[in-house]
Order: sequence, then C-alpha cells, then structure tokens
Amino acid sequence: MYELGVVHRSIRRADHDVAAKLGTFGTATVHEAMGRTGLLNPYIRPIYAGAHTSGTAVTVLLHPGDNWMLHVAAEQILPGDIVVAAVTAECTDGYFGDLLATSFKARGAQGLVIAAGVRDVRLLTEMEFPVWSKAISAKGTVKAALGSVNIPIVCAGALVSPGDVVVADEDGVVVVPAAAAQKTLEAAAARETSEDEKRAKLAAGILGLDMYNMREPLQKAGLKYID
Amino acid sequence: MYELGVVHRSIRRADHDVAAKLGTFGTATVHEAMGRTGLLNPYIRPIYAGAHTSGTAVTVLLHPGDNWMLHVAAEQILPGDIVVAAVTAECTDGYFGDLLATSFKARGAQGLVIAAGVRDVRLLTEMEFPVWSKAISAKGTVKAALGSVNIPIVCAGALVSPGDVVVADEDGVVVVPAAAAQKTLEAAAARETSEDEKRAKLAAGILGLDMYNMREPLQKAGLKYID
Amino acid sequence: MYELGVVHRSIRRADHDVAAKLGTFGTATVHEAMGRTGLLNPYIRPIYAGAHTSGTAVTVLLHPGDNWMLHVAAEQILPGDIVVAAVTAECTDGYFGDLLATSFKARGAQGLVIAAGVRDVRLLTEMEFPVWSKAISAKGTVKAALGSVNIPIVCAGALVSPGDVVVADEDGVVVVPAAAAQKTLEAAAARETSEDEKRAKLAAGILGLDMYNMREPLQKAGLKYID
Amino acid sequence: MYELGVVHRSIRRADHDVAAKLGTFGTATVHEAMGRTGLLNPYIRPIYAGAHTSGTAVTVLLHPGDNWMLHVAAEQILPGDIVVAAVTAECTDGYFGDLLATSFKARGAQGLVIAAGVRDVRLLTEMEFPVWSKAISAKGTVKAALGSVNIPIVCAGALVSPGDVVVADEDGVVVVPAAAAQKTLEAAAARETSEDEKRAKLAAGILGLDMYNMREPLQKAGLKYID
Amino acid sequence: MYELGVVHRSIRRADHDVAAKLGTFGTATVHEAMGRTGLLNPYIRPIYAGAHTSGTAVTVLLHPGDNWMLHVAAEQILPGDIVVAAVTAECTDGYFGDLLATSFKARGAQGLVIAAGVRDVRLLTEMEFPVWSKAISAKGTVKAALGSVNIPIVCAGALVSPGDVVVADEDGVVVVPAAAAQKTLEAAAARETSEDEKRAKLAAGILGLDMYNMREPLQKAGLKYID
Amino acid sequence: MYELGVVHRSIRRADHDVAAKLGTFGTATVHEAMGRTGLLNPYIRPIYAGAHTSGTAVTVLLHPGDNWMLHVAAEQILPGDIVVAAVTAECTDGYFGDLLATSFKARGAQGLVIAAGVRDVRLLTEMEFPVWSKAISAKGTVKAALGSVNIPIVCAGALVSPGDVVVADEDGVVVVPAAAAQKTLEAAAARETSEDEKRAKLAAGILGLDMYNMREPLQKAGLKYID
Repeated sequence: MYELGVVHRSIRRADHDVAAKLGTFGTATVHEAMGRTGLLNPYIRPIYAGAHTSGTAVTVLLHPGDNWMLHVAAEQILPGDIVVAAVTAECTDGYFGDLLATSFKARGAQGLVIAAGVRDVRLLTEMEFPVWSKAISAKGTVKAALGSVNIPIVCAGALVSPGDVVVADEDGVVVVPAAAAQKTLEAAAARETSEDEKRAKLAAGILGLDMYNMREPLQKAGLKYID
Repeated sequence: MYELGVVHRSIRRADHDVAAKLGTFGTATVHEAMGRTGLLNPYIRPIYAGAHTSGTAVTVLLHPGDNWMLHVAAEQILPGDIVVAAVTAECTDGYFGDLLATSFKARGAQGLVIAAGVRDVRLLTEMEFPVWSKAISAKGTVKAALGSVNIPIVCAGALVSPGDVVVADEDGVVVVPAAAAQKTLEAAAARETSEDEKRAKLAAGILGLDMYNMREPLQKAGLKYID
Repeated sequence: MYELGVVHRSIRRADHDVAAKLGTFGTATVHEAMGRTGLLNPYIRPIYAGAHTSGTAVTVLLHPGDNWMLHVAAEQILPGDIVVAAVTAECTDGYFGDLLATSFKARGAQGLVIAAGVRDVRLLTEMEFPVWSKAISAKGTVKAALGSVNIPIVCAGALVSPGDVVVADEDGVVVVPAAAAQKTLEAAAARETSEDEKRAKLAAGILGLDMYNMREPLQKAGLKYID
Repeated sequence: MYELGVVHRSIRRADHDVAAKLGTFGTATVHEAMGRTGLLNPYIRPIYAGAHTSGTAVTVLLHPGDNWMLHVAAEQILPGDIVVAAVTAECTDGYFGDLLATSFKARGAQGLVIAAGVRDVRLLTEMEFPVWSKAISAKGTVKAALGSVNIPIVCAGALVSPGDVVVADEDGVVVVPAAAAQKTLEAAAARETSEDEKRAKLAAGILGLDMYNMREPLQKAGLKYID
Repeated sequence: MYELGVVHRSIRRADHDVAAKLGTFGTATVHEAMGRTGLLNPYIRPIYAGAHTSGTAVTVLLHPGDNWMLHVAAEQILPGDIVVAAVTAECTDGYFGDLLATSFKARGAQGLVIAAGVRDVRLLTEMEFPVWSKAISAKGTVKAALGSVNIPIVCAGALVSPGDVVVADEDGVVVVPAAAAQKTLEAAAARETSEDEKRAKLAAGILGLDMYNMREPLQKAGLKYID
Repeated sequence: MYELGVVHRSIRRADHDVAAKLGTFGTATVHEAMGRTGLLNPYIRPIYAGAHTSGTAVTVLLHPGDNWMLHVAAEQILPGDIVVAAVTAECTDGYFGDLLATSFKARGAQGLVIAAGVRDVRLLTEMEFPVWSKAISAKGTVKAALGSVNIPIVCAGALVSPGDVVVADEDGVVVVPAAAAQKTLEAAAARETSEDEKRAKLAAGILGLDMYNMREPLQKAGLKYID
C-alpha cells in the first residue's frame, strides 16, 4: 500500500563514488555480485544504443497518463541522482520528453528509469540524456493526480528505495540497496578481475569445459558422447 | 536485493478475523478502501470461476523452474494463511499441483497466489483449493535451488510482506499491509454501506449524473450536448 | 482526430428488430454475411461463458483510468442499446462494475463492449449483464476528464458509429453499420439456411471435399496423395 | 523446410489402446513420464472447462487465413485420431467451427489441437467436441493455398509426427512419439501409483519435507531458519 | 464494414506545404496540437533510428499474408504521399521490401506506415526509405485477394482517411485529418514557440514547479513535504 | 520427445561454401527459394544493427535458467558453424555473454541464434559477434541440468537439425536442411538475378502492375476504379 501525496526531502543516498564505480562494471557483473538479484524486468530497455550510467535513486510514483510528480521530483534531484519512476497501473504514454530532460539535466540527473513511455527520443539522444523505458510514445500526459516522491516503489518488478544505487546499461537496469553498495562493489571488482583472466584463456582456445573443470560433473550427471 | 536461503519462522500475522472480514468485501472494495493501491497486476487470474478467499500471507521466493521452496513453505503455513509466491525471473512452469495442494490444505491454507504457472487444474477445482496464477502449464519443476520463505517479495508488481492480508477473487488479488488492515476494514465497510444505497437508487432509474451531482462539474469542464 | 467534450443526443439507430434478429445468427455468421469485415480484435472476450447479445451502439470515448463519460453515456441509453467504449490509450483498469451495470440495466442496455478492463465480475455474472472486455481488473478509475458520447470511435481495431448494430457472443464482437443492417440480415439468413443443410450432410459422413467439390481444384493446385 | 502439397495416407499410428490409457493419466503425469519433454507451449488452451481427451495425431500444415487443408485432413481421420494443426505464420483467425467439427466427429475424431483460432465455441461446447487453440475468433478463412497432411509439423513449439499419441486436458497438450508410447505408459502408471500413496500421506499432515527427505539436502544447500 | 475491391483515384489531399511544415514539428507536438488525439498505437515503430517524415495519406487495406494491393496502391502515389496500410487481421509477415520501396520512391512516396511486417531492412535503411511497422519478418506474401485503396481505414487503432496528413518520427505516427491540417499547424507552431522559451528557462535551472505555477495547486491537492 | 543428456560428435554438415553463398542472398531471398518455409518466428531479433551471417548449425537444447550445455557445445564447434539454441520452456535470462562469445569465436563460430536472452550486448557489438535472440537480459544462469548437443531441436517454431544451413540477418533467421542446401542456393541465385532486373525497371518508374501483368487478374477478380 503506497503512501500517496508525500515527498520525502531527506533521503539517505548511497555513496556517490561507490555508485559511480559500480557503474563501470555494468549490470551483468553487478547483478552477479548481488547473488543474482536486483534486476528490473527485461522489458525495460534503453531508448538509444550505448546508453549506460549509474547513480542514486530518486523515486517517483505516478498515476496512469499523469506526469505531475515528475515535476515535483525534479526539485529533489541532486547531482549524481537517477530518477526511477513507477506507475500505479500499466501505461505506455510518453511521460517524459526533452523539456523535463533539460530540467533534470540542469539539476544534475544522470538519467531516468521509467516503467512507462517517453517521447522526444531524437532530442534525448542528441542531448545524451539516457533513459530506460517500457515504451516510446508521442502521447502526452496530464498534471492532475498526486503520487509521491522518494517512497519505496516497485518498478518493473523490483523494489527500489530512495538512495539505492541504480546501474543501467544496454543489458538492463539493476538496483543495489544503499546498505549493500560497498559490499557489492567489492564483489563486483573481484568478479571482474577473475573475468579478465578467463577471457584471455578462452581467447587462446582453452575450453570452458576444462577451465571450469566441468568434465567430471557432466560425466557424473550422465552426459553421453556419441560418435 | 532479496535475502536468499532463509526461512523466517516467526512472522507477525494480521488479525485473522480482520482478514476474513476483508475477504467478504472483495478486491474492488478493499482496493478502493486503500486509496486505490495494493493490487497485483491483472495478469494474475483465478484458475476456476467463482474462486474467492482471503487470509494472511506466507511469502515464498522461487527460482525459475524450481519449486523446492514451496515444500519448505508448507511447514510454515498456519490455518488461515494464503501462500504468495514470486519467481526471480519470468516463468510459466507448473510449480504447484494437487499433491502440494493436498499438503497446503492439510496445513490449513486458504489458497495460493503465484506469479508463475500451476497444473492439475481439474483436481484443484474439484478440491476447491483456490489458486491465482499467471499461467496454467503441465510442465513440472525441479527441486534444486534455495530461495526464501517469509521475506518481503515483489509479486506481480506488488510488495507483499509476510503476515499481510491477501484478498483474492474473480477481479484479482489485493494486498493489505498488516498494519493497515483494521483501518482498511473500516473504510471498506463504510464504502460498502454507501454502495448498497447507491445500487438501490440506480436500479430505480436515478442516473449517476444526478446521484453524484456530476452535471455541474461536467458543464464547467465544457461538456456540450448536441441535438 | 476525435471530437472531445461532446454528447450527441440524437443518433440514428438501426432498426431494433433487425438488430435482435442479427443477434440470433451469432458473430461468425454475421461477419461472413458482411464479407468478412467488421470484427473487433479477438482480445476482446466475454467475462462469462455463454454471454451473447445484440443491440444498437451508444459509443463512448474514455481517457485512461477515467470512467466519467460512462456516467454521461448512461443517460443516452435507450432500451435495446449496447454501450461500446474505447479509450484514448492502452489501459486495463476496471472502468465498470456492478453499480454502473445496475444503472445501465435500468436504462435498458443489452450489454457493454469495452476496450479496457471491468470489475465486479461475480456480480455482473449473477446479474446476467453481459460484458466483453480486454481485461478484468479490480483497479478503480477517476472521474476527471472529458471524452465524448455518440461520436464515431475506433474500438479494438474496428470503427463503430453510434446507432450501428453490435452482435456479441462467445466468438467475439462484430459491428454492422446501420445502413447495412437489413442487407446483412438477409445475407446471414441465407447463409444460415445453407449451413443447416451442410451440417446434416457432414453429420451423415459426407466429406467437405465432396460436398464443396474441392477434389478437382485441389488436384489442379497440385495436391499429391502418397500411400 | 516443410514438404508442401502432399497428403500421406498411410501413417503408422500408435496403438489406440495405449493412447486411450495415456489419456487417463493426464498431461502432467505423461509429461513427467517422458522426462519432462513433449509439451506444447502453454498458450494453447482448451476452449471449454473440463475438456480432456487423447488419441493419435493426424497432422495438418495450414497457411495464414486458409483452412483448406482441414477439409483434406477430414478424409484421413480414423476413429481415435486427434487432428493437430500448425500454421506457417502467426494467425488468430477462426479456422474451425461447428460444420468442420460435425464432419470430424462423424469420422471419429477425438478432438482438435490448433496453433491458431477457432469459432462457434458455444456449439462446439454443446457438441462436446474438445478443442485446444491459441485464440477464439469469429473471423473466417479462405480455401486457396496448399499445405500438407500427415507430415511432421512444429505445433506451438513441439514437433508432432503423424501417428504420435496426443494427450490433452485442462493443463495443456503433450505429444508422445509413437515409438515411445508403450514405455511412457508404463512410466506414467508407475508414477501414478506412487502419487496415490503420497497424496494420502500429505492429506494426513505429513510434510513433503519429511516424505521426500528434503531436510538434509536443504541444510547442506545452506538453508537457515530464523526465529 | 470495409468496402472491398475498390480503388479511389480522386482523393482530396491536404495541402502538401502544410503537411511538410507539420513534419518539422514532430509527432509529439502535432499530437498535442490536436488535443492529444490522432496517434497510432505505440507498437508501430520505425525500422531504423532517425527515421522521420510527413506527407499525405494513400490508404491501403490488405488481407493477411497478401500484398497485392500494395502494387495497386503504387499507381495512386503522387509525390509527397505516405502509404498507410492496414490488414484485416493480425499479421506479421513481410509485406514490403526493397523492390516495392524502389517503386514507391520512384513515384515520389515519402515513406510507408504498415500495421504488419516488412523485410529487406538493411536495403531500406541504405535507401533511406523510412518505414514504420509492427514487425520485421523475412516471410513473403502472396498476391491473391482484393483489398482496397484510398478508403478510410483503421490502422493501429487510428482512423486514417485518404489525403490526411501523416507525421511520423522516432516517437511514433500521428494522423491529422485534412480538414484540420491548417488549424493544427497553427496550434503546433504556437506550442513550439512556447516550448523554446520554456527550454531556456529549464536549462537555466528554473523548476517546472515555478515556471508552471504548480506549487499552489499541489498544496491544494494535499501534497505534503516531509524532511 | 527430446533425447536428453547426449552429445552427438559426428554430424553431417552442409557444405560450408554453399552455406557462405546462401548467406550472401539474405534471409528473405533464401526463404522464398525454399517455397516460403524455414523461418524462425520474427521475435528472434539481432542484438545490433547490421548483423548478418550464415553457417552450419550446431544445435543445443537448454533448460530454463541453465546454460551448462553452451559450454559443452563450444567443444563441438568447427569453423563456419553457427550455434542454434532452444530452451525447454519460455525463458528470457541472459544465457550468453562476452566470455562465451570469446570462446565461441576462438573455435570459429559465426554467431549464435538463441530462443532466450543474452547479455554483454555492448561487448558483443564491439567484438562483432552476431547474435539473434528473443531477449536481452543481464540475468545470469546456472550450470546444473543436462540438455543435449547436436540433436534436432525446435527453435522459435522451426525444426533445426545439426548440420543444417542457418542464414541470419536484419530480417530474421532461416534454416535450410543440409540436403536441400545446394538446390536452395540455385533457386536463390535465380531469384536474385530476376530481382536485379525488376529493381531497375521499378526505379525507372515502371509499375509492378505492368511489370507483373497484374492488371488483368485484378480486373477478373473484380477490382473497380472509382474517379
């Protein structure tokens, strides 16, 4: 049960430096570092190729066809934030375009993740303001109903609390709770180092079967080779 | 970020009497009484016509194609509970059939809400064990990976905490946080009384336009009648 | 470009007797009688098994999450009408429940076709008020934005003008322009007679291959039988 | 690459008695007995509640919007057969209605599985002719293009060869290759016996955790109970 | 009920200069200028990034899997036209490829909007012939059934009449009735001027909350700020 | 019924030269050359613009959320192969990323076709390792369950046998049985020549109506021109 009509002005943001570093690893590595949790549903896609960013979440709860609270959220943005917006029902309308992007950018926002539609895709691409959305639609919205800003929301199947780290790239969007950010960063870094070594071996023709010692467990599981 | 591999045995359940009374109002009224929040996505549908129930949530987090934790959850069921299950990725497999339903029923479960598939629909219907699911599929699942029981989960777009009241009927499923159950019950009861009066007036031919005093706001909004 | 904020009170309805007779043939026959046109998209489904009706269209244009105009439409209903409602964007909210159904029924409505969601399905079923919808959802709607009543609308991919005949059953919904209703009725009647004869022959074991003289065209088309 | 324009008249059907017995176990059990393979995608659903049957496959390859080959297939039906139809592209048109059902029934068909739409649902229900389809649509089809009858087809994601056993019920549709029918029957029977015993224990309140000896593997996997 | 088998050769096109100017504003602005109506459903997407155009509609009604009428339509194209094609049932086949594009381009077409699939995407991109479609598919079509050219059609949920202005870009496709084109152009121009001013203010850090005077209505609506 | 737990090491590959030449024609032409069969469903899309390749199929059957068999498959890759992977149930997880791509590339693979999700899209694009998938998702997979390598599989609605030619480009993916590869190549070449001539004529303004001699059949079919 969402708390409606409130704006929390004082949120505890994850460390911005940690958020930035998590962004360098990308969503696949961060998601693995969190024990394979925290991903938004894969129907959330970047609006242009190459989009990637990370930051701390300013959350917004919207109503269908109504983007009023995005304007309220703008005032709560600090440099390094990513706005994460959910809607109380399925909606593909274009809640966000180049005007709001101009405002968000002026406030220091790193990007937008929204479980609805956006528009002005050409201009957003030119501005290099990265957006992850469920749809692209020219359809505009009204400004009539109160939602909330900076409450915990469910966005595309994931729970996002204000201040959480959000990492977004071409593979999707992952949320790291503020309290787990530092630990996740260490796990991601460890994983990345390990991946570099593996990549070199695989490029040299060594098989994953051997590198990961899979032949014995496969045999035990009953795999049969037929010539 | 879900906590994996844990079972919380001591959960604070909403009052069972309140949960039962909320069930008599149905999801539409309860959802309105909560300020139009708390609904699961409408792709969660009952597997047979006429299914309706209410209870307190035992939550389960599952992995794709793996129903191991449903067996773990069975032990945590108390009479009056409803099991609410989410999966860490999209999956339509049949996680639940008549054997698990027999076990759940023996433990006193009121029903199951699952963001995945179920099977043995004919037997579940005969048993009158109500299930709300995303799919029906004969496909079986394995028992291999640890999820969790009685942690807060996101199920079909809604946050469900263990002990919350769950109301489910042919219109869908709504979740009432335990702390808001009593207040929601009162709001629902007030609404219901009001609806009975309205129904009688409408049946007598009085228009909503007059009963709700809509003619003036419609005129102000600019509505024009053309003959 | 829809005309917004208008209610046309004087519409030319197709003959009610013709509408009723068309209803006896069902959507499949009526659709064939119209040269295979006029069907709404098949995602529009009846909310209960066995629903079937016909009538003349009172059309409504709604906004997402807003059912205000359904109340406006109620006043325009005459006995024998079916309300047909479109929304200006995708929406699955529950626009219509037992209160509005009570009002519509008191006005003489035959049913509702809506390219959105409805709720109170159990009560609507008990009332035997047939509804064809895109979704079932307990989610309520507001009363805030002006749409229109009795303008031509696009509903689930079909153009529906006020006064058109609407035939709806378990196979879907078909719209017959008022001007074509009489001619379509005659074509449907002719088709139906022909179907009765065919049914008897097929039940007696005569093959469609022979009854429809398909063997020669199949051979000409190059069909080969392999033993 | 499908072979187009051919009708294989001599197909090797699985034993009808075996097919009938497999039908008594239902799709969930048969699918398990085959090592969890052979299921059609779960979007194939029965058109009425309670539909269940089994038989040997007569396969049909259709073109979008064209049901000509269903008439050709009718002649190839022997008592105990189920017609299984695929389309060369996505299509929801109503390929099959009460006339074809009358003909199929007269030939001894047990039912129809079709990866497209059907119509005349009310009549098919009254006739108790079971159909599993992807859609219901009043939209008719033409008779213009050659497909094939009794070639191996891919239907809703599963490979179906003529003569295979098809088991269909409310949980979906499963295909058993003719060569594996007897072995699958034995495995299904063994599984069923085992299920009866389990059901009794679970009904008596014994937990699956104990009955399946899951406590130790769960502990080894690291499951933690928190009070 | 579509009129089948006809080609209207004399259509009243909107002024080409007005169509061209509307194109410079883009779909979002034009849609707003029309009172938020006229958009095609957002599943219609451009086949390559950066596609944008405008023109006057030549409409085509097609049958599933049959592109015959696109050839008939080619002859009706005048320089500055956009072909808008609907299909009488859901279909994702590739109706249009580089050969037809070569022909359409030679006739002066500005692009194609089609509620179905297209193919030869690489070549269409190289040719810079913009297409908005529902799908991309290599599947070819036949030339067998009569549809119509230059009749009013319902395309992706919008009514399109021959001669209407069509504006298409990365945000989608919007249709402006010929009779409303001049008025819409003026409204779009006014809106655009207003947007330029707003953009500058927002870029300078002024909040929408202040620029649009939202603080008072938000307070009246009950918004609470919590520190 | 899939054979599980087997790896066929000796498969009969189509001629690599033929496979390469088929690739030059693209999927639309090859699909036409095969009599309009052999296409995978159009929801299989390339992960980056411009992807196109061809090769011989190494097939893999996977379980939901489990990519173990992709490692087993790597060892079976010969230069010029394309890996084609199906999953036993619907799954959008990211089965494949830059590490496996490095390994596949080192073995000489031309690309991957997978009826599931992939990740590391940015790196795969930089590596120019072409992938056609159903989804993009950062979600990782486990290595636990045995599938098979080089058995016939159903992938996105098409039957693919090991050694078949696979052609993939921006229009989709088509499969040519090894036995039909040479014949299909000849048919594709003939078609291509014919297309070059047609393109020149159409570019010169000749209408398809005249070039294909459609005017008479259209008139016979009853097409009417209205001025």
